[in-house]
Amino acid sequence: MRFFSDNAAPACPEVLASLAAANGLDTAYDGDGWSTALDERVSALFETEVRAFWLPSGTAANCLALAAMCPPYGGIVCHRDAHIQNDEGGAPEFFTHGAKLLLAEGDGAKLTPGSVTALLDGIVNDVHRVQPHAISITNATEYGRVYTPGDVAAIGALARARGLHLHMDGARFANAVVHLGCTPAELTWRAGVDALSFGFIKNGGMTAELLVFFDTALAEGTRQRRKRAGMLLSKGRYLAAQIHAMLDDDVWRRNARIANAGAAMLARAAGDRLIHPVEANEVFLRVTPDEAARLRAAGFDFYDWGPGEARLVISWSQGEAEIAPLADAIAALCAQ
Amino acid sequence: MRFFSDNAAPACPEVLASLAAANGLDTAYDGDGWSTALDERVSALFETEVRAFWLPSGTAANCLALAAMCPPYGGIVCHRDAHIQNDEGGAPEFFTHGAKLLLAEGDGAKLTPGSVTALLDGIVNDVHRVQPHAISITNATEYGRVYTPGDVAAIGALARARGLHLHMDGARFANAVVHLGCTPAELTWRAGVDALSFGFIKNGGMTAELLVFFDTALAEGTRQRRKRAGMLLSKGRYLAAQIHAMLDDDVWRRNARIANAGAAMLARAAGDRLIHPVEANEVFLRVTPDEAARLRAAGFDFYDWGPGEARLVISWSQGEAEIAPLADAIAALCAQ
Amino acid sequence: MRFFSDNAAPACPEVLASLAAANGLDTAYDGDGWSTALDERVSALFETEVRAFWLPSGTAANCLALAAMCPPYGGIVCHRDAHIQNDEGGAPEFFTHGAKLLLAEGDGAKLTPGSVTALLDGIVNDVHRVQPHAISITNATEYGRVYTPGDVAAIGALARARGLHLHMDGARFANAVVHLGCTPAELTWRAGVDALSFGFIKNGGMTAELLVFFDTALAEGTRQRRKRAGMLLSKGRYLAAQIHAMLDDDVWRRNARIANAGAAMLARAAGDRLIHPVEANEVFLRVTPDEAARLRAAGFDFYDWGPGEARLVISWSQGEAEIAPLADAIAALCAQ
Amino acid sequence: MRFFSDNAAPACPEVLASLAAANGLDTAYDGDGWSTALDERVSALFETEVRAFWLPSGTAANCLALAAMCPPYGGIVCHRDAHIQNDEGGAPEFFTHGAKLLLAEGDGAKLTPGSVTALLDGIVNDVHRVQPHAISITNATEYGRVYTPGDVAAIGALARARGLHLHMDGARFANAVVHLGCTPAELTWRAGVDALSFGFIKNGGMTAELLVFFDTALAEGTRQRRKRAGMLLSKGRYLAAQIHAMLDDDVWRRNARIANAGAAMLARAAGDRLIHPVEANEVFLRVTPDEAARLRAAGFDFYDWGPGEARLVISWSQGEAEIAPLADAIAALCAQ
Repeated sequence: MRFFSDNAAPACPEVLASLAAANGLDTAYDGDGWSTALDERVSALFETEVRAFWLPSGTAANCLALAAMCPPYGGIVCHRDAHIQNDEGGAPEFFTHGAKLLLAEGDGAKLTPGSVTALLDGIVNDVHRVQPHAISITNATEYGRVYTPGDVAAIGALARARGLHLHMDGARFANAVVHLGCTPAELTWRAGVDALSFGFIKNGGMTAELLVFFDTALAEGTRQRRKRAGMLLSKGRYLAAQIHAMLDDDVWRRNARIANAGAAMLARAAGDRLIHPVEANEVFLRVTPDEAARLRAAGFDFYDWGPGEARLVISWSQGEAEIAPLADAIAALCAQ
Repeated sequence: MRFFSDNAAPACPEVLASLAAANGLDTAYDGDGWSTALDERVSALFETEVRAFWLPSGTAANCLALAAMCPPYGGIVCHRDAHIQNDEGGAPEFFTHGAKLLLAEGDGAKLTPGSVTALLDGIVNDVHRVQPHAISITNATEYGRVYTPGDVAAIGALARARGLHLHMDGARFANAVVHLGCTPAELTWRAGVDALSFGFIKNGGMTAELLVFFDTALAEGTRQRRKRAGMLLSKGRYLAAQIHAMLDDDVWRRNARIANAGAAMLARAAGDRLIHPVEANEVFLRVTPDEAARLRAAGFDFYDWGPGEARLVISWSQGEAEIAPLADAIAALCAQ
Repeated sequence: MRFFSDNAAPACPEVLASLAAANGLDTAYDGDGWSTALDERVSALFETEVRAFWLPSGTAANCLALAAMCPPYGGIVCHRDAHIQNDEGGAPEFFTHGAKLLLAEGDGAKLTPGSVTALLDGIVNDVHRVQPHAISITNATEYGRVYTPGDVAAIGALARARGLHLHMDGARFANAVVHLGCTPAELTWRAGVDALSFGFIKNGGMTAELLVFFDTALAEGTRQRRKRAGMLLSKGRYLAAQIHAMLDDDVWRRNARIANAGAAMLARAAGDRLIHPVEANEVFLRVTPDEAARLRAAGFDFYDWGPGEARLVISWSQGEAEIAPLADAIAALCAQ
Repeated sequence: MRFFSDNAAPACPEVLASLAAANGLDTAYDGDGWSTALDERVSALFETEVRAFWLPSGTAANCLALAAMCPPYGGIVCHRDAHIQNDEGGAPEFFTHGAKLLLAEGDGAKLTPGSVTALLDGIVNDVHRVQPHAISITNATEYGRVYTPGDVAAIGALARARGLHLHMDGARFANAVVHLGCTPAELTWRAGVDALSFGFIKNGGMTAELLVFFDTALAEGTRQRRKRAGMLLSKGRYLAAQIHAMLDDDVWRRNARIANAGAAMLARAAGDRLIHPVEANEVFLRVTPDEAARLRAAGFDFYDWGPGEARLVISWSQGEAEIAPLADAIAALCAQ
């Protein structure tokens, strides 16, 4: 059993079915009915008028948002362990034409008003120094922690006070929403978020992510930038189809609930071996190399995250039956 | 019936089936078995060692090829009507960091050794002028013409003589190959092509194109550039699956043959109204505005291409039964 | 005697003297009194509030103006023979992050409302095509022709009607102004120009050009872009000094008058061998290879511009005594 | 008396005189005799074959070196307090098209093999993470410390072992050389440096810096990049002239000795208030706000560097007579 990444999970049945259905649409690029319906559909979900763009990757969604928020000569505040800093191969610099990521601290990859303020206050305001234009936070974070609506609002208030835009990388936004039990609106624009990368792929999608602008003026130029990045897919309807399928009947929430439940089961088994509180679908454990080897020998695969650390990610496709043996194996380690 | 674009056609059944099959693969990015098998599979097809990269769009394939061939301060020779010049929203400039497209002439959007030479000879070789580093040709062209292996070889020889790389935009490569009855090798590396954008999407694919490097040293950096462009999809296996499905049992040739046959049927009906010889799946007709209106009233949709010109594109999904009424309607125009 | 380029001319005495004077300033970058005085000084000259930036090259002035006017995904209309297209090594693409130059026609490298309209009307307004954001004209042009205030105003009106910014490359702005006998204001913002590259180097300066924004909102970001381009020189006061020296006592007009007068003397001698009317300090002549060889043998050096064409450029430092023998030699050719 | 920056110092008499002399050269761009002589002249100084490029700023020299060493998708290791990271307004990202600076630690802004190794070992070698391609060190450093030939060689060996290029930002290279008493060769290519930004402006120059490639193959493309950055000045001979003037009769060493001597005088006065050992022409002092105010009241101007820290920079133009009163004032603070 593999617990490497939710990226390795299959697409859910509703998504697969939607692709066959999209075969009946016959307009290229983003001119089909499902693509053109996205703005209204996503506006309804978020209870405000938005502009929504399908994209084939979360990296693209993040980076088009940042390009809209920050000029080439500007900077973007993010956590030292943010995905945009460490795992996107320099894509933010590519899409923004060289903006600089400004790295702040915080437990569990969560920025705080304090950590952001400390960073900002250390940046002399002159032409020689790259000046910040935006803040980017990840929710749920790279360590499976969530920002509550209150957490976001505190950073949103700071962003407004400093004249900065606020982006949320929501590769696991669904996991955060269902953990918190809040509405999508509460966790985003009501708390000051200007744009959200709304992730579907890790949550049972196949090749479609969504970039949502709450500040619709910010969206200007994004259609052009998407085209110019080679991401206005000629058969974009197949991406729109995936998103509609996951929004129908709250499939996105259902999938996230399953994944979170699996992680919670492991968290209960792991007790004080947890490195971070488990608030989404990721579990970080303290394990010795020997213990890690034993787990693998028992058929459980996962990433070593650092010395003595294991990362396990649970996907929408891994039910209780699949998780239980791993929970037992972890509990057995703890009991030694 | 719609004859706007082969981009509007559905994905073929083999491609849809492959997506369901790919659900059984469980490795992220390009680490799955189908992605890693591409190099060998495509090398066999082309009878030489290649490096092959799946990508979600033809624009991306073209532009990553050009980025590998041309430094930011260089230039790329292409036809004045090339897709990379007119229809990619500036993507070549984005991916190459600002290389300049150098525009040459030629009937039917075909470059010739003469037209390329005329352009090159007009470029003073000094530091003030952007110098050419590559040539890009489209086969089949934007007007549905094909370069024969001999045509390509003549440009390939010129490219080598001038120290330039040669790229082929093969968005409709399949249509060219089946029209010519040649091997993929004859039309590409044997004729001097260094990299090919091998199109699948217009030919019955869904969201997967292939970038093929025959000059494998040129491929260095392309994995990094693909990642950095947000195009190392986290579930890339679904792109690999589509390509394998279309290579299996020569589906790619079968689909192209159907589309070409439909276009040939229209060409026979159109007689001397043809603006360009029909060699692939596109038909350009001389029609008066009144005639265009009558065709549309009869249920046939297509693009006006210029004043008095109509473009009709036939796809793999449009069989004889669908084409025949249009052929009859065109023949009726001619008979007047 | 060399008539290659006004770039080869010496700096004028006032400029040299200003450098020694600037030795007394003791503030780095653009914080010195002469740099900070530029906005007001240049505003007075142009009779309107401007933002003015010294720069070490005209290419830099042009390209920072274009970067302020056009997003990376946009296009800039210019003449097919414009300096920004042919002689800046791709700098516009570098500074704009890949904007595309859109080439229009016109005699003597002069755009006309008609030629610009023809170009614009051929650009389909969709996301696949790079859309124009600005027009750039050169005054005096690359062939020594001038746009009158009326010529500029006609293009300015077109620019406004189409929502485009208007840039003037004034590498030889002084030559145009003295030829026309108009005010700097009449030839620029009163005619719709948003930004001017005001050239000093060809006109007796050493290493300082000036970028002038009449649309001061457009200037936002330019200080940052100048810094980021490595052009906020640490001893910028020596650039400011050159500009003040040339504005003092109308040195800039005096120098241009001398150069124009020399060109006029050659024009009178050349008669119907002139390829372009001589309106500034450049003379383009029809000469056979044999005649060119004879002129060179007589000690006159110049560029071959095309087959059977010679370009001669006269500088501020070439007085009547130096020009007269060349005029005689040209007259002798004509008399044969 | 001002001790803000050596950038605020005047140009030295030899440099001023050279500009007048350059008035006699009459070739544009870099075609004049002094520009074309640079390669040979600088090769002699460094006792090896080099390629040398004049540039109008140190930022440009640094960034063209980095652009030659690192692809857009790569990373450059530098100190957290490096000028390229904090004081160039994002120029490295502009010139490299978005390469990422990777920040390492070290006392006095000096990297060590240990600190670089620690950074490198923390970078997972996969396509998701930006990979290092170069190391950049500053000598003398931003805190006036020097790398000895041995220090550089240790980092040079590490660079080679890891397949990285090595760049030295020598804005104050002269100060380091005269402090160490070594040859330019010993401090650069013999210790593994591939390219040096050789600073003249802070050391008595006006507007000319020099980029020196010891790895001459690396220089390929730099002439094009310089042009494209708007830095192939049309009257480049005035930059070449400055450099020749400072190399003649070892003016560059003479000027640096004066500045270093002034700093040494202050260092002796400052005793244990020194924050960093004084090895070049910068002095960092611990002072209370009250003490800083008293120094300013006495006519000494300088930057506050951090809370309780003052930075004083001594230039080639500040002789003993000017320094002595400041030394006395500092000594008086210490005596309290």
